[in-house]
Amino acid sequence: MTQEIEIGMGKSGRMCYALDDVAIVPSRRTRDPQDVDTTWQVDAYQFGIPVIGAPMDSSMSPDTVIELGKLGGLGVLDLEGLWTRYEDPTPQLRMIAQARDDEATVLLQKLYAEPIKPELITARIKQIRDAGVTVAGALTPQRTQEFYSTVVDAGVDLFVIRGTAVSAEHISQSHEPLNLKKFIYELDVPVIVGGAGTYRAAMHLMRTGAAGVLVGAGGSAVSSSRTILGMHVPMATAIADIAAARKDYMEESDGRYVPVIVDGGLGTTGNFVKSFAMGADAVMMGSALARAYEAPGQGTHWGREATHKSLPRGRRVSLEQVGTMEQILTGPSTRADGSMNYIGALKRAMASTGYTNLRHFQDCPVIATPYGA
Amino acid sequence: MTQEIEIGMGKSGRMCYALDDVAIVPSRRTRDPQDVDTTWQVDAYQFGIPVIGAPMDSSMSPDTVIELGKLGGLGVLDLEGLWTRYEDPTPQLRMIAQARDDEATVLLQKLYAEPIKPELITARIKQIRDAGVTVAGALTPQRTQEFYSTVVDAGVDLFVIRGTAVSAEHISQSHEPLNLKKFIYELDVPVIVGGAGTYRAAMHLMRTGAAGVLVGAGGSAVSSSRTILGMHVPMATAIADIAAARKDYMEESDGRYVPVIVDGGLGTTGNFVKSFAMGADAVMMGSALARAYEAPGQGTHWGREATHKSLPRGRRVSLEQVGTMEQILTGPSTRADGSMNYIGALKRAMASTGYTNLRHFQDCPVIATPYGA
Amino acid sequence: MTQEIEIGMGKSGRMCYALDDVAIVPSRRTRDPQDVDTTWQVDAYQFGIPVIGAPMDSSMSPDTVIELGKLGGLGVLDLEGLWTRYEDPTPQLRMIAQARDDEATVLLQKLYAEPIKPELITARIKQIRDAGVTVAGALTPQRTQEFYSTVVDAGVDLFVIRGTAVSAEHISQSHEPLNLKKFIYELDVPVIVGGAGTYRAAMHLMRTGAAGVLVGAGGSAVSSSRTILGMHVPMATAIADIAAARKDYMEESDGRYVPVIVDGGLGTTGNFVKSFAMGADAVMMGSALARAYEAPGQGTHWGREATHKSLPRGRRVSLEQVGTMEQILTGPSTRADGSMNYIGALKRAMASTGYTNLRHFQDCPVIATPYGA
Amino acid sequence: MTQEIEIGMGKSGRMCYALDDVAIVPSRRTRDPQDVDTTWQVDAYQFGIPVIGAPMDSSMSPDTVIELGKLGGLGVLDLEGLWTRYEDPTPQLRMIAQARDDEATVLLQKLYAEPIKPELITARIKQIRDAGVTVAGALTPQRTQEFYSTVVDAGVDLFVIRGTAVSAEHISQSHEPLNLKKFIYELDVPVIVGGAGTYRAAMHLMRTGAAGVLVGAGGSAVSSSRTILGMHVPMATAIADIAAARKDYMEESDGRYVPVIVDGGLGTTGNFVKSFAMGADAVMMGSALARAYEAPGQGTHWGREATHKSLPRGRRVSLEQVGTMEQILTGPSTRADGSMNYIGALKRAMASTGYTNLRHFQDCPVIATPYGA
Repeated sequence: MTQEIEIGMGKSGRMCYALDDVAIVPSRRTRDPQDVDTTWQVDAYQFGIPVIGAPMDSSMSPDTVIELGKLGGLGVLDLEGLWTRYEDPTPQLRMIAQARDDEATVLLQKLYAEPIKPELITARIKQIRDAGVTVAGALTPQRTQEFYSTVVDAGVDLFVIRGTAVSAEHISQSHEPLNLKKFIYELDVPVIVGGAGTYRAAMHLMRTGAAGVLVGAGGSAVSSSRTILGMHVPMATAIADIAAARKDYMEESDGRYVPVIVDGGLGTTGNFVKSFAMGADAVMMGSALARAYEAPGQGTHWGREATHKSLPRGRRVSLEQVGTMEQILTGPSTRADGSMNYIGALKRAMASTGYTNLRHFQDCPVIATPYGA
Repeated sequence: MTQEIEIGMGKSGRMCYALDDVAIVPSRRTRDPQDVDTTWQVDAYQFGIPVIGAPMDSSMSPDTVIELGKLGGLGVLDLEGLWTRYEDPTPQLRMIAQARDDEATVLLQKLYAEPIKPELITARIKQIRDAGVTVAGALTPQRTQEFYSTVVDAGVDLFVIRGTAVSAEHISQSHEPLNLKKFIYELDVPVIVGGAGTYRAAMHLMRTGAAGVLVGAGGSAVSSSRTILGMHVPMATAIADIAAARKDYMEESDGRYVPVIVDGGLGTTGNFVKSFAMGADAVMMGSALARAYEAPGQGTHWGREATHKSLPRGRRVSLEQVGTMEQILTGPSTRADGSMNYIGALKRAMASTGYTNLRHFQDCPVIATPYGA
Repeated sequence: MTQEIEIGMGKSGRMCYALDDVAIVPSRRTRDPQDVDTTWQVDAYQFGIPVIGAPMDSSMSPDTVIELGKLGGLGVLDLEGLWTRYEDPTPQLRMIAQARDDEATVLLQKLYAEPIKPELITARIKQIRDAGVTVAGALTPQRTQEFYSTVVDAGVDLFVIRGTAVSAEHISQSHEPLNLKKFIYELDVPVIVGGAGTYRAAMHLMRTGAAGVLVGAGGSAVSSSRTILGMHVPMATAIADIAAARKDYMEESDGRYVPVIVDGGLGTTGNFVKSFAMGADAVMMGSALARAYEAPGQGTHWGREATHKSLPRGRRVSLEQVGTMEQILTGPSTRADGSMNYIGALKRAMASTGYTNLRHFQDCPVIATPYGA
Repeated sequence: MTQEIEIGMGKSGRMCYALDDVAIVPSRRTRDPQDVDTTWQVDAYQFGIPVIGAPMDSSMSPDTVIELGKLGGLGVLDLEGLWTRYEDPTPQLRMIAQARDDEATVLLQKLYAEPIKPELITARIKQIRDAGVTVAGALTPQRTQEFYSTVVDAGVDLFVIRGTAVSAEHISQSHEPLNLKKFIYELDVPVIVGGAGTYRAAMHLMRTGAAGVLVGAGGSAVSSSRTILGMHVPMATAIADIAAARKDYMEESDGRYVPVIVDGGLGTTGNFVKSFAMGADAVMMGSALARAYEAPGQGTHWGREATHKSLPRGRRVSLEQVGTMEQILTGPSTRADGSMNYIGALKRAMASTGYTNLRHFQDCPVIATPYGA
């Protein structure tokens, strides 16, 4: 039963929950963490760990994309980021890492005003492909028509279309918008698309033929999206809703299972765990991976929405670098703050609640508490 | 269904919500921000942006009233403020801006003890009228009878009556109170009046003939009103209730549409956006405009209730000046804290939820979350 | 309808509310603050303002009891405090005011270990009586039998019995407990008694013949009582419940109206206002009056439960001194933090919601908000 | 009635409460604190105070186990802690106490990598037994099979099996897991086992023959367990649920009463009190006893889950040392922060609500408040 509350006369709203509002509770049966399986797949691609590197310049460079692939995950390069705007973005990354807080936004706006070079898209993708890992690149819906053929020609395995709010039905008075259904149908490459925040938005994206759906607001930091646009996709509710869409769509499509991928805003291993218990198949990580020693952000983190020329929606933040990417993903952890050993935490939580694989763990009971922490 | 909760035996209260408690969520359809229309009108006056400058000395001087008008909004001068008490209030504004926190209240009490000069009312209004923008001035209910003819003679287009709690039925044992209905009926100029916090209060104000109704507690800072008087008008609920009154009144009046104007306490572009999704037609802004480089408050902000001689209800606060008034209203923004590009944020939010004009956006679905942030 | 929630299987609890959770909202009618009447009475004694000075050494000395009486309120001296233990407690008060935070509790324990002298009870009461104000003194239930005849012989108008949890039915294996009903019946002086936290506790106290009932936990700071004893009397709920008991008792007693007096924990003028809207007749103030320049605490405040020899339940806290007692009670206020002009705030709130006397204001509608502030 | 809320479509969760969310309220009858009885028993062992020292190296050494026993409680030594890894752990304890915050986790991981020596288990147990107090030692489920015979041979009175999530049905692909039912059945010594978080988990543990059940997540700090594993056992709900299991199991077993022991996360005397009102028989204390002058942690505190080699779930924290263990347990208290005189607070709370023994106090009514504090 949906909880509708009356906000005012004639205006009701559904009560929605964040991952901080829920938790898992162990019950009768327990298992060993080493007996837990964390594999998952999207289209024909299988992965050992349910982690996707978010297409953000602070965490995913060609090198870290390759490293993440070798660790069993999927790295996604932002094809509209610094790596396709600059031949060698090393100086730009250093400038961002060293900027003062109060000058960082303006610096980002300036650096991302540099045009995208198609030949750099080709070169970056080639570098990743040559390393032998699964190749994935991301564009925004706004620029997909402009660059997709370059991307496809360069040879990606998975195509990611990612924006703050991506719908199957975009209407424009000034240009012919991307027809997502036609685009996906004609493309040979499977497409992961989002962010979607509701059952309906996700269901429509699944019907366009999407190979996977991103849950969220395109990686916008939750607080910025709420503070600046008044928009909020509370994650626990959104994941469960979109998992319900996955189930209903599977029925209507005679069996196509479209993975639900949580896009951002998690922060801790605990919320990573809860995502799966709410119904997710994989998680797209931004800040978690930006904490790696080898992350290009060098102790800072930002999303592309923070670079918008007239309405930046996010900040460059400073993060403590806590370990190697491998340690962050699979340990050993040297800290007790939920920033390290994501897979170890997931396995232990699944074991403590008696589950052996991710698909079953989606049914794990959860509780709600009146406050987040 | 109204949510009544039992506070104690025999005492129930309705559960009410602030804008921080709600959010919009994008759903199936999206649009381009440039396809969004933000015009609105009150009586015969049409405006390009739904922004009214609150009659507060920290943000609205004759000069900034004019500037706001030229930017498409409506500036309102406080006709009981420093500009009608002092020939040139520049020294007083500087004193306030430079006062220490612990001496500011007493300074305000002293400076606002200076009598209002009718000839200054006339002069200020003339200056604004000569600039060619829509002219609006504000009085409190207490002093409307004393000064309204001076105001009308000076030539205003819109008359604003604004207090903490303005009712259609004020009762006094010591004087003949303002009969609002008679006053509005006999006045040639349309009157915007408030603050009102409930359906009933707003309905009665509409029935007096008000051209627009202010929602809130007359711009009193929310926290002060609650801390000092125990009074609180949670904005999300109040806007929806008063929007319901607008609809019912439109029916009973055979079609008169009385704009609902949110008066203060918003703080961020996100809450500005949510106001319209809850049912508002326009927003009266105080602190947001006090952040402009050209604001008379010079980095400080206060309301007139902070100047009360025996019960000040608000403080002079310090604000960071973030950009020009134009940048604050229409960008470009150089910050990601919700303090700049109000109209850009509104357009993007409307576009992301698929709406093209403000009247339709009033129907935008909202969600509630268990905590504000 | 009572809101019972299931905490766990077989264990439910009623949802209770603090004053911070509720607020008043102005509606249709408004009045002038000067038309508001704030008188009230207990037994045959009438007072101009509904303020009782809590029997605490930090705020009520013989001098401030007299001052409060002359301002229209009722001061109550703690007859087990420093004034009845020391001939001249000035040095002790100075020591407490000057103690470091980490040594204050032990100092209080030591100073209050000094025995009570009956002759000092007599002398203090005489001093107050000679000043011509209503005379009231407080004892705890534990020591009432020991000292009451001294108190009565000294000539009090009102007798206050005040403890953390006072019941009409105290059971002891080691001594004959105070039989409250018999005690009150035989005493010539009206007795105000509490704290009571529930309808049932208050109803029983009313049936003992109490002239007034204190709501709360005997002035224990809310947080200490909850932190240390796990005990909490959320004030909004408790006031409403006990106001309901007052009504039911009035019916069963054929018309005896027992005033409901809120005992402590309010903090601001806003919560003072809300107390009456929830059903109170008067408020017993501790920290508010300890902020006066002339308060014996000299910028510090503590309750007697903070002096307990083995389980202190409260701390000596530092408070800013904000004005004279007169300013704190009736203004003018020079601050906007809810610490000054209690009566002015009450009158303005009553006027803004259209009420002219306290008994009617008890019916003022309230709202609830999901968070305190 | 269980409160199920819809988190998202197809995913509901029960609303659960922490001890901070509830409180007790005094009602009609009161008693004297000295008339209150706090004895309880597990199996054949009776104790004067319902306090168990948690098997944590920061609070329980052989010496403090003995001291606690002499004070009427039950100390439990961690048989996998420093005292069974090092002949004399004094230098290790000093190193931990002196480590900087950012190096403490790695230090713990290193020190706890030292192997456990069976002969030290024997020696520690002998030392405690020789002192004449009840002897109890704790192992984790993982290592019970390895060490239990050493423990039993050394002569314990009570055996404690304690882990984050202990179930009656552990499944492993790599080894034969501990069959708890068979183990308990064959052992001569009564076994206390946990943590359990639900009715079902506890019921199954009772059916294995457990002499007592620990409620919680094995003493993991609540925040770490939630932050790192996404797992949370809100204590108020868990205690009530498991008390319900105790009642149902007593019926199905024809009268076996299995004490419910709250394991950790309480923090204050107030929450200690509330535990019993929710249904507990005793409380296992960690940080409270680590505040004693004589505690081995010397002003620091950690649990064994903080020493995990790949996924530490807890930190070494600094605590203020507030008094002797005796003062902490039975006063006199010199502070008003809920850190001293646990038994005094319990007795006073029971007296204020009219109860004379712990079993009756389990029925004490509680209230809920919308926020923790």
